[in-house]
Amino acid sequence: MAGGRMKLELSRVVQGKSRLGVLKGLGRTGKHSLEVPGCLLYTHLGTVPHLTQDTLHTLSSLPSVTQVSLSHVAEHQEVLEEFKVGFRKFAGLHDTVLYCSLHDPAAPCPTGYTTNKTVSVWGSGGRIEVTAAKFMALQAAVQPDWYHSMADGETWQGNTSRKRVRKSVDRTLAHLDECLLAHQKSRELDGVEVFGVVEGGDILDERLRSARETAKRPVAGFCLDGFQTGAMDSALRAQLMAAVAKELPEDKPRLLQGVGRPDEVLACVEAGVDLFESFFPFQVTERGCALSFSFDFSPDPERAGSAPPAVLEQDHVEAVAEPNGELRVDDQTQMTRFEISLKDERYRDDFRPLVEGCGCYCCKNHQRAYLHHLLVTNELLASVLLMIHNTAHYHGFFGALREALAADQLDLLKRRVLSEDKK
Amino acid sequence: MAGGRMKLELSRVVQGKSRLGVLKGLGRTGKHSLEVPGCLLYTHLGTVPHLTQDTLHTLSSLPSVTQVSLSHVAEHQEVLEEFKVGFRKFAGLHDTVLYCSLHDPAAPCPTGYTTNKTVSVWGSGGRIEVTAAKFMALQAAVQPDWYHSMADGETWQGNTSRKRVRKSVDRTLAHLDECLLAHQKSRELDGVEVFGVVEGGDILDERLRSARETAKRPVAGFCLDGFQTGAMDSALRAQLMAAVAKELPEDKPRLLQGVGRPDEVLACVEAGVDLFESFFPFQVTERGCALSFSFDFSPDPERAGSAPPAVLEQDHVEAVAEPNGELRVDDQTQMTRFEISLKDERYRDDFRPLVEGCGCYCCKNHQRAYLHHLLVTNELLASVLLMIHNTAHYHGFFGALREALAADQLDLLKRRVLSEDKK
Repeated sequence: MAGGRMKLELSRVVQGKSRLGVLKGLGRTGKHSLEVPGCLLYTHLGTVPHLTQDTLHTLSSLPSVTQVSLSHVAEHQEVLEEFKVGFRKFAGLHDTVLYCSLHDPAAPCPTGYTTNKTVSVWGSGGRIEVTAAKFMALQAAVQPDWYHSMADGETWQGNTSRKRVRKSVDRTLAHLDECLLAHQKSRELDGVEVFGVVEGGDILDERLRSARETAKRPVAGFCLDGFQTGAMDSALRAQLMAAVAKELPEDKPRLLQGVGRPDEVLACVEAGVDLFESFFPFQVTERGCALSFSFDFSPDPERAGSAPPAVLEQDHVEAVAEPNGELRVDDQTQMTRFEISLKDERYRDDFRPLVEGCGCYCCKNHQRAYLHHLLVTNELLASVLLMIHNTAHYHGFFGALREALAADQLDLLKRRVLSEDKK
Repeated sequence: MAGGRMKLELSRVVQGKSRLGVLKGLGRTGKHSLEVPGCLLYTHLGTVPHLTQDTLHTLSSLPSVTQVSLSHVAEHQEVLEEFKVGFRKFAGLHDTVLYCSLHDPAAPCPTGYTTNKTVSVWGSGGRIEVTAAKFMALQAAVQPDWYHSMADGETWQGNTSRKRVRKSVDRTLAHLDECLLAHQKSRELDGVEVFGVVEGGDILDERLRSARETAKRPVAGFCLDGFQTGAMDSALRAQLMAAVAKELPEDKPRLLQGVGRPDEVLACVEAGVDLFESFFPFQVTERGCALSFSFDFSPDPERAGSAPPAVLEQDHVEAVAEPNGELRVDDQTQMTRFEISLKDERYRDDFRPLVEGCGCYCCKNHQRAYLHHLLVTNELLASVLLMIHNTAHYHGFFGALREALAADQLDLLKRRVLSEDKK
């Protein structure tokens, strides 16, 4: 194995698929762990968008793993190399496991720029072409604890030909071999974990081939690529994902890229996914919205007051959902039914917190009316406060998801999140 | 007197002008105080721009008085009236004295909209016309501890006619009388302090008349209007201000509106000003800059390391200063010689803190290179971090200013701030 001590301990597998457990042995010291199903902490250049590390750490139950994307880092390669001691120190991060992904899941990247030898990332200064050698040099400069190998992920669109999909699987396996070879020779990456990337678009046998071949390599776990929101019909996705999961070893974690909506998270956990990226709360914040869906599945009436209860009114839901409940990928900037839009006039004199009972800094100190006024006057504290709430709410949802799995009540949680039963 | 218990206790008056002391008896309880020369805490809708109350209160030595502008509040009048318990609670402010001004000093307002009976403020939704009755209704909804009366301040431009200036003085006195009358009848404003506004443009006898007449009214102190940066030549301003100061009672505070640059603050303190608005650090932050001027005037070599030392290099200074050292009012968006621009390429691999020795959260945790990269990638944490530093630096400067006055070393501080002697 290229990496270190990462180890998945499953405590429960529901219906042969949904997995509950702990990912242990994380970080260079091996002392960190992460509960699964779980998510990584999404960042821009190391910072959870808009929040200082101090503000961030007022939130409880944050994931121990921070995600940074090469697309944000690539243009700073020289500076990081000159800095020498890695990205964690560069960004002033507290003690955290650092995971480095290729792309920013919140910023869909243009297609058509991948070649046999290169992939492209988009930074603030435009496109940067990355060979496997440059990719590995970037990892050596970033010094993460964990990264996924270079991959050709340009095959998520439904109309991609079988030939192109096959090429993507071949290239991605070739990149993986090249990365693993360079990894073993690198002193900077000693003890660092590598995930292989499973591609294959919407073609079952390519998915299976990608999964099997990747599983043969000495990887610590798997990234499932090309399943992002809008890439395909949700039934097809669940089917492909379940088939892929069967090919992957039980004892290694599966990280799903580009999926964040609560309903999709639930469906993908049921298809055997362990880890998600937490870019969704950031997207919600960017459109001036607050997550408000209920995830209190407790049938115990005494517990009912302790978790955020259902929000009474839901706005705009029907306006954005597609007939089949899917959103197209370019619709990720639009509101979902899991949030309320604080810019809406109805909140100008609403003196309640964002979510009654929520314990986050924003909900304890501010009301919807104040958030509305901050948004209307373009004061960026609105984004700071919304990001605090949305981060807390989203990670609270993952906590409830694990509790529900442990209590064998995933169905109850699902109904609550999807608001099929009003409490 | 309309108001409460505000009381200025002067401990030292240097050369008959520069005043050192404490403004006591502030707030409804009368328990707050503010050292002078000092400044108020500048806010947007109650928030120091971009900072949560928790982040703000990681800074030491913050002023006890928070300024909010009617221009931000006027469009929310109905909501505040419905809310009933005042703006402090609405904005989730910690324990602070609330001062309400008419305009936002960081947003110059268009001229030509003042009438005999009204002034105009500009909110996010455009212009709002304010009569004295509406002005007082707004104060009753905001429930500040302290505000200044309505004023016609449209006479700061150098080419304003004597007739127009006279009208401005007359109107402002009439507004003051109307405000004081309404104030005395208002239950909501019981115990609240009122400052009168001194106008008079650049015409000496109108300045004197405005000061004398205002001083005859039962006001707790004075706002000096029409002296803002760029309104007039600094020598003329100092002369007018000193003349005005002579007409004002020694035992009442003088608040200067629209002046924030450190060199100007020093000159105005020497002309007898006690209080300033702290919008300058916000303007610096908005342009992606960090305050970096030295205010360590200590001749004691043992102390030299404890305060921020001089920044070694100064950039762009010559590019923005006018030949006579003045900036035109429309130039307030431009860099001054008291700051460095973190967007500059030179900082991309500068691994030092913004200011060596500065104890603020930003300087203790981050380097110039990281700030540069945050700015380049448009991550708004850059504004959060810069606002933390600039606020800390600016209030540190006011602390040094008081220390220098106490130690009779204002000249030394001036040379240091103006970098006339390099340490």
